[in-house]
Amino acid sequence: MKISIQKYGGTSLKTIKHIQKIAKKLQKEQKKGANLVVILSAMGSSTDDLITLACEVHPKATGPAMDLLLSTGEQVSISLMSLALDQLNVPNKALNVIKSGVNISGKHTEAFITSIDTRNIMQNLEQNRICLVAGFQGKDENNEIYTLGRGGSDTTAIAIAVALKAKDCEIFTDVSGIYTADPNKVSRARKIKKIYYEEMLELARLGAGVLHSRAVELASKNKLVVHVRSSFNNLQGSFVVGEDSMLEQALVRGVSLKCDESRISLLDIEDRPGLAAKFFRNLAMNEIDVNMIVQSSGQYNKNSLSFTVIQEKLALAKQVSDDFIEKEGNARLEVDAEIAVLSIVGIGMCKHVGVAATIFKALAELNINIQMISTSEIKISLVIPVAQGQKALQSVHSALGLDSLDTIDSIETMDAKA
Amino acid sequence: MKISIQKYGGTSLKTIKHIQKIAKKLQKEQKKGANLVVILSAMGSSTDDLITLACEVHPKATGPAMDLLLSTGEQVSISLMSLALDQLNVPNKALNVIKSGVNISGKHTEAFITSIDTRNIMQNLEQNRICLVAGFQGKDENNEIYTLGRGGSDTTAIAIAVALKAKDCEIFTDVSGIYTADPNKVSRARKIKKIYYEEMLELARLGAGVLHSRAVELASKNKLVVHVRSSFNNLQGSFVVGEDSMLEQALVRGVSLKCDESRISLLDIEDRPGLAAKFFRNLAMNEIDVNMIVQSSGQYNKNSLSFTVIQEKLALAKQVSDDFIEKEGNARLEVDAEIAVLSIVGIGMCKHVGVAATIFKALAELNINIQMISTSEIKISLVIPVAQGQKALQSVHSALGLDSLDTIDSIETMDAKA
Repeated sequence: MKISIQKYGGTSLKTIKHIQKIAKKLQKEQKKGANLVVILSAMGSSTDDLITLACEVHPKATGPAMDLLLSTGEQVSISLMSLALDQLNVPNKALNVIKSGVNISGKHTEAFITSIDTRNIMQNLEQNRICLVAGFQGKDENNEIYTLGRGGSDTTAIAIAVALKAKDCEIFTDVSGIYTADPNKVSRARKIKKIYYEEMLELARLGAGVLHSRAVELASKNKLVVHVRSSFNNLQGSFVVGEDSMLEQALVRGVSLKCDESRISLLDIEDRPGLAAKFFRNLAMNEIDVNMIVQSSGQYNKNSLSFTVIQEKLALAKQVSDDFIEKEGNARLEVDAEIAVLSIVGIGMCKHVGVAATIFKALAELNINIQMISTSEIKISLVIPVAQGQKALQSVHSALGLDSLDTIDSIETMDAKA
Repeated sequence: MKISIQKYGGTSLKTIKHIQKIAKKLQKEQKKGANLVVILSAMGSSTDDLITLACEVHPKATGPAMDLLLSTGEQVSISLMSLALDQLNVPNKALNVIKSGVNISGKHTEAFITSIDTRNIMQNLEQNRICLVAGFQGKDENNEIYTLGRGGSDTTAIAIAVALKAKDCEIFTDVSGIYTADPNKVSRARKIKKIYYEEMLELARLGAGVLHSRAVELASKNKLVVHVRSSFNNLQGSFVVGEDSMLEQALVRGVSLKCDESRISLLDIEDRPGLAAKFFRNLAMNEIDVNMIVQSSGQYNKNSLSFTVIQEKLALAKQVSDDFIEKEGNARLEVDAEIAVLSIVGIGMCKHVGVAATIFKALAELNINIQMISTSEIKISLVIPVAQGQKALQSVHSALGLDSLDTIDSIETMDAKA
């Protein structure tokens, strides 16, 4: 049996009208013989609404009750979708969290999927029913309900696709695919035809909200092709694939700009083995995630150590840094509360020294001072003043030739595909 | 272990503030050693909101998806109550519908409880946790979710109390107890100290919304004392009890007025055996519930047959009646779209012919024409013109001496009780 796995995000399920539209789409595909497993997120902002409600009761709401509460969002979505399909006389089954077979373990509100028991899904597919599964949630062996953390519905969809031995999984969203940059920030951003898992991972971590990084990791591990596309049209979207399935070779895949971080620098710190490790352990113990880290040697056995943290953790990170300096030596602390992180992602990039040169030239022409540079196999990240972020993004996008990237926005209807 | 079973209705859970207030009340009682099982309804109007949403998708929304949808209302309540108790550091456990042990059978959206598996509840009580159970719902042997129909949370609470071998069950609501008449309609309505199950059943069926009739039946069958009281004060409420536990003897317990019915009369219908049975079968086949029925013999082997139906079923009932007359003989149809049904309930009433006389005298003095009379062991119902309903209710309430009924509104705090 060829099974089609589709996931619809909250923005595709904002209103009853959205739900009805998707129900009609599913009906059409089923008529053409598709065996559909559909994973749904909570409607629109309903998860945020539930969190707001919970925080009114308990500022640090978490644990089993929080998961029981949050799981209602997707439960409402699959119920309403089921009723919409009932209304169209389309056989379907909304599987509640106990029956969907998504087995989960770990901590409440940030659990992980351990396995998928596909028996109920298969039984319903064999009876020609569209299977509706609540994303973002699962149960443990005691039938306790857990959620996966934000963006978890993507992971649910990928895990189910893997368990059902599908070759691909469609992620329907409110944008047409993955772009070379955020189209809201870069007017000439182009849709990417195909992107490697590793590149997508970097972009996802950089806040390209279109696909959750855990989901990409899971797809990558299982070589599952992920098709990110729009719920509102039939255009082909972007495919996330492994290296061997890549047709074209591009140096740079995309550019991103994040403006929600702060920089902390410990200047003139003693160059003593284990000192940096100790410092970052202190940060970790305070549950502060560090994003970029740059260490450079200075004069007279002194180093400077710079790192970025999310702005809401700045106060805590500063406190930890102050305490550390007081105990471990007299470094100077320098804080930049608002910075921009410009990142350039592409798997072919590291082999071409020309890419970095192009980027630096573009920024130099704009007189932008680069405060930190961090490079990896497939990414270059630069810390620049936040006021110049937007301009830098546009300019680097153009300089790297992404404005004119060949894309696939030809009208290819879903019907033709099915 | 002495266990206290408490149920809180939607009006007691309108806002986060309401939830926090009840959480504090539970904390206080637990500190005094109470072992609490708390059954919650959905917050405020949230069940109605979910129904509205469902009907937008499917005008006749029902079945498993409807139950999956509706069950989220109580799930949200127990989650938020659990978080509110967490915030007060009160050990507690919100049991999801699969773990609460409420086993259910029957049709979707109108199922019935078959048994309660109390193991999870007991385990949590033994660990000194307050048990939170979602009312109105349960699961079948395949872990499919069902709901009990409106007012079902009362039934959940009574069923759990019976299963835990409790002697009583507290139903917390937005009124202080059961009244001799609706306090919104009769200013001198008095709170009833104690009321027999049978009387409460009649009042519940007559629309005294304070307690669901299925719950009363279940309590009656198991001789469980039900204490209906206010969530917002510590006053003693009304006790629903069996005949043997009654202390005082009153002729009349309460008076009610319903204004949502219509009357249909088939006049000069042939007096042929089985004709009425056939007619009422036709109504039943069209899912029309008939409330009062009065048949009287007329002249020349002719009868007149009158009955009342809820106003929204009038058009359908009229159609069925027309069809019946056309096939079965030439009766005349008389329809009164808006009538008032005045009911007087009391278990000692039937033995005292004086009660009926008092009622008729009171109505005669107001020049009110009685259109139908129906009596049972513990109830007299009268159909009167809707315009005079309110006046009749007040007058009969006074004439029967209910204005001056001794009540128990002395301040008896919950602390004193515990």
